[in-house]
Amino acid sequence: MADKLKGKALIAQSGGPTGVINASLVAAVKETRQHPEITAIYGSRYGLQGALKQDLINLGIEGDRTLDFVAKTSGSALGSARKKPEPEECVTVFRVCKAHDIRYLFYIGGNDSAEAADIINKDAKQAGYELHIFHIPKTIDNDLKFSDHTPGYGSAARYIALEFMGFTNDQRSLPGIHIVKTMGRKNGSLTSASVLGKRAENDAPHLVYIPEYPVSIDDFVKDVLITYKKYGTCVVAVSEGAKTTEGEELVTVAARELYGKSELLPKDSHGNIQLSGFGVDLDYLLCKVIEAGEGIRVRTDRETYNQRCHPTIVSEVDRKEAAIVGRQAVIEAIRWDSDGSIAIKRTGYGPDYGIKLFVTPLESVAKGTKSMPEEFYDPAKKMPTDAFRTYAQDLVGELPEQGRLKRYAVEKKAI
Amino acid sequence: MADKLKGKALIAQSGGPTGVINASLVAAVKETRQHPEITAIYGSRYGLQGALKQDLINLGIEGDRTLDFVAKTSGSALGSARKKPEPEECVTVFRVCKAHDIRYLFYIGGNDSAEAADIINKDAKQAGYELHIFHIPKTIDNDLKFSDHTPGYGSAARYIALEFMGFTNDQRSLPGIHIVKTMGRKNGSLTSASVLGKRAENDAPHLVYIPEYPVSIDDFVKDVLITYKKYGTCVVAVSEGAKTTEGEELVTVAARELYGKSELLPKDSHGNIQLSGFGVDLDYLLCKVIEAGEGIRVRTDRETYNQRCHPTIVSEVDRKEAAIVGRQAVIEAIRWDSDGSIAIKRTGYGPDYGIKLFVTPLESVAKGTKSMPEEFYDPAKKMPTDAFRTYAQDLVGELPEQGRLKRYAVEKKAI
Repeated sequence: MADKLKGKALIAQSGGPTGVINASLVAAVKETRQHPEITAIYGSRYGLQGALKQDLINLGIEGDRTLDFVAKTSGSALGSARKKPEPEECVTVFRVCKAHDIRYLFYIGGNDSAEAADIINKDAKQAGYELHIFHIPKTIDNDLKFSDHTPGYGSAARYIALEFMGFTNDQRSLPGIHIVKTMGRKNGSLTSASVLGKRAENDAPHLVYIPEYPVSIDDFVKDVLITYKKYGTCVVAVSEGAKTTEGEELVTVAARELYGKSELLPKDSHGNIQLSGFGVDLDYLLCKVIEAGEGIRVRTDRETYNQRCHPTIVSEVDRKEAAIVGRQAVIEAIRWDSDGSIAIKRTGYGPDYGIKLFVTPLESVAKGTKSMPEEFYDPAKKMPTDAFRTYAQDLVGELPEQGRLKRYAVEKKAI
Repeated sequence: MADKLKGKALIAQSGGPTGVINASLVAAVKETRQHPEITAIYGSRYGLQGALKQDLINLGIEGDRTLDFVAKTSGSALGSARKKPEPEECVTVFRVCKAHDIRYLFYIGGNDSAEAADIINKDAKQAGYELHIFHIPKTIDNDLKFSDHTPGYGSAARYIALEFMGFTNDQRSLPGIHIVKTMGRKNGSLTSASVLGKRAENDAPHLVYIPEYPVSIDDFVKDVLITYKKYGTCVVAVSEGAKTTEGEELVTVAARELYGKSELLPKDSHGNIQLSGFGVDLDYLLCKVIEAGEGIRVRTDRETYNQRCHPTIVSEVDRKEAAIVGRQAVIEAIRWDSDGSIAIKRTGYGPDYGIKLFVTPLESVAKGTKSMPEEFYDPAKKMPTDAFRTYAQDLVGELPEQGRLKRYAVEKKAI
């Protein structure tokens, strides 16, 4: 075997943060210390912006105490970014890498980040700059191809599960209709996690709408009112990416019908309509339900950025896996002298729960995302299936049981 | 001293639920078992609706294990209601009480509930029905007169504090402008709790708007953009009851300007505009900020019903106090042969933290609510003061520290 490539390593975090993305970061940093091939480990601030602007920090000299603390802190400690690199930016990145003798690049992110890593990888080969790139997966959306699940999902799913357990207790107190938006532009995994704490048929949520299955506004209103009539309460989980049967995003329909103009909707830097930070879609659903169901208490809510950043709600399994995935990227980058992405295969469920890591080519996870498997959702019941629960339960960790009165009825008396 | 009044007791929960209202319920139920004057303890389902419709349950025969579990479960285990009793309904309540030999009534709730208790109390006296009524305070709004603080507030404040700690981590990852609505129609205590986990000047929140201090939309936009320019991030906490300088609620202005009609806004059963379940006000602020600050990432969020119902986020101090307040109501009802509300006086702060309970007349807490003390908020900085932090910190319990990299900068090289 040829001599291993020797040089510094650079690590960056990209895309939306998660509760455990720093666990991947710290595990990778610590692992680099075990390998003489890696002479130092730098962090790039705000995705690759740091590499472009030489806004780099020396992670290798951070103390263990600091690192261990950061590993348990939510969010992206290096700062993150959503921008894909332009070809001319890649050239700058190589120049910076060359100037600092950086030969290993670790990029923590979702499929967009894998795509960015793939672009850099190909450009590096073309430029003749020897750089080993490994993608470390993370996404709360759980939509990376080839992996059973993605680090970050378990903690976000735990947050959602607990929120809906709270909504159950709220609805038991003051029943009504409650429409809640959760994150998830294309994949319903996170929205489906709303059922994981559901112990009884009349616990929240009662209806779950995911991007994979469009719904007409009329059917939505009908479903909600029928469910409310049945249970005296109706909590709805709707993905931000939920679509009407005409294929439009709910938020677009809502803005057009409520505001008279959808141009008003804020857009993100990719030109996508901003789904998470806007509530007009929910207000629209609320108005429609109020119109149709005179006098019923109707509320809406948005699940917020704490799906991905809560300081205390985290899945321990998720945190542990985020760390081993980060560590494995460093091991593989040196062992194989090549590029790739770390992927997760599940080896068992429940008491037999386990995972195995494997390497998949960067380009295999770069393009496209996966939807929830069909067997995880029942479109007739508008409800994730037991197969989904079996899949997801191990990932979020144990959820608390809730105390319920036995409610021994007192016999009525003549008054 | 005359013989103590002997008979059954009835207990009800009223108004919005809290994380610890069941701790009050269970402590009161258990305490009744210590007093031979109380021959049984019934629960009224959904506030006084249960007493009206004889939808009563026998709480005295619930097992200790169930009760202890319920005490740790959020929400109102009996169900709740927001309706004040009409005079003719009071008559029905006395008839039901008489038929069941109920002589003690414990009513857990906020000032509306104290008012309801006061109405029943006066009507009972007029009707010559001997009934001892005690109000057990709870409200996440922390707005009951005469009490230093109210059971339910500490847990809700803890939830808010943790959410904003998460927003800090989110903003450190992907900076931008983030406008977050929290509960609080008239009192800024809950919105102010957003600062309790703030450790650094550039931690969230950067601006806090409370109902006690109106703001013009123009000034709001100006404040936000100046703050964003200064820190490169701006997280805003806005009370749902925030008002414009013209004295209008933000949600009304927003609905008029965005929808062209404010009639569309949902109203609650008191005819008040529904503030919590609607997001048009935030969307309006968001649009205004987007218009003024081209290109900045702007998002909005609403803090949701889990401020009052989260299954795991609770302040242990709050839970403990909710229990002792519930227990004390039973003790006082028997000791004094009279009616009243339990109130909390604080005896110390920090390491000397302590409270003393006292009885205040029902009517003293029934009418009106209190605002935040002036010294708790700095209108120039749009920020709760250190005095507020000192006040509130004991009530929410310890908040986690967050790990931060030391960020040793790497020297730039020529490329």
